[in-house]
Amino acid sequence: MSTIINALKSNLPEGAILTGESLKERYYHIWKMGEPLRAKAYLLPRSTEEVSKICSICFEHNQKVIVFGGLTNLVGSTETEGDEIIISMEKLNQIEELDDRSRTMTVQSGVILQKIHEVANAKDLMFPLNFGARGTAQIGGCIATNAGGLRVLKFGMTRAQILGLEVVLMDGTVLSSMKKIIKDNSAYDLKQLFIGSEGTLGIITKAVLKLREAPKARSSAFLGFNHYEKVVDFLKYIDRGMGGSLSGFEVIWKDSYKVMTGPDSSRKPVLDYSYKYYVLVESLGADHELEHSKLQNLIEKTIEEGRAEDAVLAHSEADLEWFWTIREDVKVLAEQTKFDQHFDVSVPINRMGSYVDSVLEKLQASEDVHNAYAFGHLADGNVHFIVAKHNSSDELRLWINDIVYSPLEEMGGSVSAEHGIGLHKKEYLKLCRTKEEIDTMKMLKRNFDPKGLLNKGKVLDV
Amino acid sequence: MSTIINALKSNLPEGAILTGESLKERYYHIWKMGEPLRAKAYLLPRSTEEVSKICSICFEHNQKVIVFGGLTNLVGSTETEGDEIIISMEKLNQIEELDDRSRTMTVQSGVILQKIHEVANAKDLMFPLNFGARGTAQIGGCIATNAGGLRVLKFGMTRAQILGLEVVLMDGTVLSSMKKIIKDNSAYDLKQLFIGSEGTLGIITKAVLKLREAPKARSSAFLGFNHYEKVVDFLKYIDRGMGGSLSGFEVIWKDSYKVMTGPDSSRKPVLDYSYKYYVLVESLGADHELEHSKLQNLIEKTIEEGRAEDAVLAHSEADLEWFWTIREDVKVLAEQTKFDQHFDVSVPINRMGSYVDSVLEKLQASEDVHNAYAFGHLADGNVHFIVAKHNSSDELRLWINDIVYSPLEEMGGSVSAEHGIGLHKKEYLKLCRTKEEIDTMKMLKRNFDPKGLLNKGKVLDV
Repeated sequence: MSTIINALKSNLPEGAILTGESLKERYYHIWKMGEPLRAKAYLLPRSTEEVSKICSICFEHNQKVIVFGGLTNLVGSTETEGDEIIISMEKLNQIEELDDRSRTMTVQSGVILQKIHEVANAKDLMFPLNFGARGTAQIGGCIATNAGGLRVLKFGMTRAQILGLEVVLMDGTVLSSMKKIIKDNSAYDLKQLFIGSEGTLGIITKAVLKLREAPKARSSAFLGFNHYEKVVDFLKYIDRGMGGSLSGFEVIWKDSYKVMTGPDSSRKPVLDYSYKYYVLVESLGADHELEHSKLQNLIEKTIEEGRAEDAVLAHSEADLEWFWTIREDVKVLAEQTKFDQHFDVSVPINRMGSYVDSVLEKLQASEDVHNAYAFGHLADGNVHFIVAKHNSSDELRLWINDIVYSPLEEMGGSVSAEHGIGLHKKEYLKLCRTKEEIDTMKMLKRNFDPKGLLNKGKVLDV
Repeated sequence: MSTIINALKSNLPEGAILTGESLKERYYHIWKMGEPLRAKAYLLPRSTEEVSKICSICFEHNQKVIVFGGLTNLVGSTETEGDEIIISMEKLNQIEELDDRSRTMTVQSGVILQKIHEVANAKDLMFPLNFGARGTAQIGGCIATNAGGLRVLKFGMTRAQILGLEVVLMDGTVLSSMKKIIKDNSAYDLKQLFIGSEGTLGIITKAVLKLREAPKARSSAFLGFNHYEKVVDFLKYIDRGMGGSLSGFEVIWKDSYKVMTGPDSSRKPVLDYSYKYYVLVESLGADHELEHSKLQNLIEKTIEEGRAEDAVLAHSEADLEWFWTIREDVKVLAEQTKFDQHFDVSVPINRMGSYVDSVLEKLQASEDVHNAYAFGHLADGNVHFIVAKHNSSDELRLWINDIVYSPLEEMGGSVSAEHGIGLHKKEYLKLCRTKEEIDTMKMLKRNFDPKGLLNKGKVLDV
């Protein structure tokens, strides 16, 4: 047995290290669950101290490590090559405290997002971060990737929900700032560096989450538009009119909507297929009557004044469920063909309409593309594409990447609004970051991880 | 004339550099305007390129620089020793774009905060950052110090309002990411490092600000309480009840309130002096009738249910003005004696009541202290103290510091909620940051400013 495995075995409790035969039981491999897991060992620490011990040992032995959270990322961040040691956070899964007076929750990084929702809700509090994979995603991964999701418009990205953070550096140093305070301008806010750095600068072991009072009322409407300018006008109109309670403003382009409510889906359409853009708005508030009538009045005026072509208000919990599952279940788009390619780009809101038109038109002109589907968080300037294609050739993949990514540089957009860079988008980073920025990032990576052992090859090549 | 001054003169336009006699015209010195400005030269760049040129020349000549914004900081951040060159941002004062569709404003760093408010408001938009010194503070300084202020509860600190940032490093490198997009997870979010680092890592030259639709309705109430627990209960009650429109929750302790509404002030009291805590709440919304009646109903219930001792609702613009100028004009507290000492600390909300009681009691027991005044942003866990004292001895100053700061470590508080560390709080940083954190900060400082020339001696001693 290798020296490093021996060193780990003698420093970790029984059961915390899987190797050889026991490793084969774990067929984790993101999006390819049928393949065996390739790694030297799979570690299951239960405390910050164990993570720190593992890191010191690996640092001393020049051993590469990969950190596993809930494996829900979409950019290849947890792919292994076989010579890594995997540190899984799944046993670091305790909620250490819920303080309903300070409105904070102190958690270990392996806690599942949905569990956080449930525990907060039981105290009439809310943790606003929310997305489809909430039943699997771990909070440590959400923080490491600065996850976005469905309510960024009102509550911000994960970054805005984090008060305290504990991180283990590759040499075993523990950087801990687990404070329950909302404002802290005591020198550099180090946690900001780790949030969104995809585990390449340090390993998140704990966090203090900011909670909000749980909203008691949720209202929604579904609208149809034929002109992008009118969609943006309506965003401004409804946001101003709702006075800060607008929490969602999702747009689904026509072809996506047809599939999401068509024969391959279990959902019937809310509006017919006459429109180019389908907009789903949500507001969160305290009083159902009041929020609902506020939204109803605005929607009635919207139609009267010709601001939208058509609109339907959700009148029941069942309607809310119907409207939102249409938007949330995007799997049906990916299932249109055997092969699919996903995008998550940001563009300034005022330029999104023409950009999406142009991308869809170019992709639809290819014989290798079945169709291209667009939908997204318009209020955040974030559009997702799912391209359903007929083959998985590298040539086609790169051609599609080029069509989606190449306009972004001139527009001041981003190749990743919320999914991150991981392994798959590294070569496109230069379209949205300058040489000086990338050099600065590399300087940071070299200082935090001087031997280049932590999630090597992800985000940056140093 | 020295080499460095010659080098600067030959690289900058006429009028951009003041030295010798022309320097004497400038009697800037924070809080001591009567003293002459001590510096080798005072530079007035008008572009990022000029700032970059200045930095390269100073870097080459090992010349220390100090950056001047609006000079409204409270922690000695712009004090000079005489051998520095001052870079003033006052001529970098252009608003480059207001995009009312993407809801962004692109500004140079010398633009005054109040100007930003005015320009946004003219387009029915709002930049939510707001505090007393808005007529003097420059946006670059607000960003460099991650300023807080009166509406953090609803909108977050300055950090939450910044989409893009341009920074010049000490060697002249320009790090520019002036994007108008709301979500950008394309590798490390470098701007977060500069926000709140008080100008010690780089010089902010431009920013893209996130704007919001301007609220049309503002409501307020003034309440009296005798028990801290009830204040926290009421925060939760009103926040939940208002459904997200609560934008301010300020607390004034009794002795502060008596001075702020007493004979030395031009404001009459809203409530009499029977209570221990005076709470001022604000909500922002779209519809005045609706917001006002929502707040009125909750305040009526609050009194009926014995949640507060007494309450008064603002019924007019004049009432709003009256309530809020009581809170905003804290000068009257500092003017109670010749000498005063200011504090800005964070503590977890559930521990603030007993902490403030204990600090006030200890300070009031001293013969050298006239009185100690507490007020603050309770919903943010942020309390300010102004200590009115009879002498300016170092001994008294350090004794007072000790009483305010020493309990913070055990409570997980911060010596600076929003004002920063600057020169005055450096020695107390260790009470709220671990050795590992401070070592990491120093590593960052050494990498961004290897010669230690930029705002030397501020925040950290490297």
